[in-house]
Amino acid sequence: MTQTIRDLALACRDAAQAVAELSTDEKNALLRSMALSLEDDTPAILQANASDMAAAEAKGTAGAMLDRLKLDSGRIAGIASALREVAELPDPVGQVTRSEVRPNGIRVERVRAPLGVIAMIYEARPNVTADAAALCLKAGNGVILRGGSEAIHSNTAIATALKRAISAAGVPEAALTLMTDLSREAMVELLQLTDIVDLAIPRGGEGLIRFVAAHARVPVIKHYKGVCHLYVDASADPELALRLLVDGKVSRPGVCNALETLLVHRDIAASFLPDAAAALRANGVEMRGDGTTRALVPAAAPATDEDYAAEFLGLVIAIRVVDTLDDAIAHVRRYGSDHTEVIATRDEANAARFVKALRSAVVMVNASSRFSDGGELGLGAEIGISTTRLHAYGPMGLESLTIERFVVQGEGQVRHPPKA
Amino acid sequence: MTQTIRDLALACRDAAQAVAELSTDEKNALLRSMALSLEDDTPAILQANASDMAAAEAKGTAGAMLDRLKLDSGRIAGIASALREVAELPDPVGQVTRSEVRPNGIRVERVRAPLGVIAMIYEARPNVTADAAALCLKAGNGVILRGGSEAIHSNTAIATALKRAISAAGVPEAALTLMTDLSREAMVELLQLTDIVDLAIPRGGEGLIRFVAAHARVPVIKHYKGVCHLYVDASADPELALRLLVDGKVSRPGVCNALETLLVHRDIAASFLPDAAAALRANGVEMRGDGTTRALVPAAAPATDEDYAAEFLGLVIAIRVVDTLDDAIAHVRRYGSDHTEVIATRDEANAARFVKALRSAVVMVNASSRFSDGGELGLGAEIGISTTRLHAYGPMGLESLTIERFVVQGEGQVRHPPKA
Repeated sequence: MTQTIRDLALACRDAAQAVAELSTDEKNALLRSMALSLEDDTPAILQANASDMAAAEAKGTAGAMLDRLKLDSGRIAGIASALREVAELPDPVGQVTRSEVRPNGIRVERVRAPLGVIAMIYEARPNVTADAAALCLKAGNGVILRGGSEAIHSNTAIATALKRAISAAGVPEAALTLMTDLSREAMVELLQLTDIVDLAIPRGGEGLIRFVAAHARVPVIKHYKGVCHLYVDASADPELALRLLVDGKVSRPGVCNALETLLVHRDIAASFLPDAAAALRANGVEMRGDGTTRALVPAAAPATDEDYAAEFLGLVIAIRVVDTLDDAIAHVRRYGSDHTEVIATRDEANAARFVKALRSAVVMVNASSRFSDGGELGLGAEIGISTTRLHAYGPMGLESLTIERFVVQGEGQVRHPPKA
Repeated sequence: MTQTIRDLALACRDAAQAVAELSTDEKNALLRSMALSLEDDTPAILQANASDMAAAEAKGTAGAMLDRLKLDSGRIAGIASALREVAELPDPVGQVTRSEVRPNGIRVERVRAPLGVIAMIYEARPNVTADAAALCLKAGNGVILRGGSEAIHSNTAIATALKRAISAAGVPEAALTLMTDLSREAMVELLQLTDIVDLAIPRGGEGLIRFVAAHARVPVIKHYKGVCHLYVDASADPELALRLLVDGKVSRPGVCNALETLLVHRDIAASFLPDAAAALRANGVEMRGDGTTRALVPAAAPATDEDYAAEFLGLVIAIRVVDTLDDAIAHVRRYGSDHTEVIATRDEANAARFVKALRSAVVMVNASSRFSDGGELGLGAEIGISTTRLHAYGPMGLESLTIERFVVQGEGQVRHPPKA
């Protein structure tokens, strides 16, 4: 088995070289043909998905998980259409990001190039199989996909459809490699192939991500969780703040850019918090607050340190009244996850201080935390979110799957010309 | 001891927050005052260096190592002047690299921010203590320096001078933390502080770098070695190619951007190789070649596979005659180190193919490999060179010590507006 994982990865690396040399038009044509192939295979994919669903139901899998696993023809059409959208995105590969002629006449260009081989480690969602493949290939990379065992039949059927298109385009199909050995040992082996795998991106629950981070020797870009804060400054427009609060907490509480904690300046707490509490209660949100909050909002339960550090992934919010902007900043520094923070304010100096003092990947001034998403921020599509302060920070799009290299054009310049 | 390394690193992280909030002017003033402080302490630094030198000599340390270790007042003045040069460089922090207004009116900016805490692991050169500190601080970071034991007195004296200036600027002096526990255990502990250290940069021999890579849990950006190739295309201007060859191999053979292997197209080999061999011999370069090379250059010894993979760090070169450009590319892919490759050619299509087919960090067309250096490529100063295809690739300057984050300005936009 040791030989096999390494062989798979080596084959993917060789195929990645072929992908790297495709033109933009060739890559876009490939993505469109992958979409067609997926649509053609709809019956086979649905049948494979049915056996995954039956196995999951037999195991008593929870409803939310079943929903993530389930495919129907509408969802498959959606996946195909996502592939076509990736084809429409600008190609980062070959982009010249800077160009300078040095005093000695050499032209130094920075040019975007593919990373190489990317390992995606993910859980139940079979759509990730196609989405990740599309983004990795568009950026000129090979991809090794290691999905969850609960989706293995669906993932295999999707990969089969995609590989047919890859093969038809004259690219070795190992450019998309789906791991079928789903043992932890095989995953660990993959994550230690430092001479082959350039980057691992885990997507899923905190447990999976911590496992990947603990066992990987290859670089990992990840985020564990999103503990996103809304700070309502003394100068905030209360209606605006309320809008951000409800959108942030209620519009989709199970995702990482949902709000988990509300911080309110004491000067606005007495007027803001009762209205906020009414809106939260009307949306079924459970509140946990400090003493000052509870004096204003009797319905709030006492908040613990764990509540302030929690990603609830549901309709619960932690609330604290703070004396100053600096106290709000200190709270975020202590409990935050470097994901996304929001300030509601009419004071530009306070906004600037909040942005500068916090090191989170995304900081919003008077906008909802729910915009912390590749599509919403203009990246086109998202391969993941990074709270690792290296290479990429925040939502990651196609560009995050490339690296800038140096290309120099000269006319025979040397560093130490021979003495005349 | 376990407590101590973590405590040191935590103090550096807190201090890094203070550095991150300094303005450009404040950082530049700090760097200039560090330069002054270093000059003021010249006698103490020379005295400390004398005891390092005495200990190294007593241990029978090799001459090249002694030369790297030795300081005199001229070298200290050079270090101070390098600090002032870093003060003159543009500040990457706060640079807005992109700005876009989305259809919903939110403005999405990408803004450069400091990485956080950087661990520099290096060997004998005491100048790295000051150079690395200057670059890390200018980019708004804290730095933990772990130099070699042979330079401990020199490094301590330099750090003492620099810390005095840091303290005087009102920044906690832990922003520059010099490790004095030089045990391997302490280094490993530092390299595993994934919640504190954002990046480790090892600089030195391949042994040190492999040790760091093997033991680190924090991200590492590194290069093991530079096996740089010059490919002389059939269409090359022979005089130009000869110039690149001599400069690349001879001007400073002990550095990573020196040439190690010469590849020559067979159609030009008979005319080029004898002249090349004469020039190499005149410069004392030992040659090792394949059969075709040796038929043309009787002075060349037979080359082994190890020779083609070697970074000689001296006046030795491996030579091979190739049948085609593709064979040259295949050779570089097999034996290369992803550092720097050069093509000498008058054929634009061949140049483009060479650049695209090779994934090395730096590819030069008709220019010397010796330009693969941060200063020469316009980065201003160099903190290291990366052949890790992530975050930075090739020579790394100030910008490599920052990350792009998202700053969003809105007017109350939400993702899911409540239905009217």
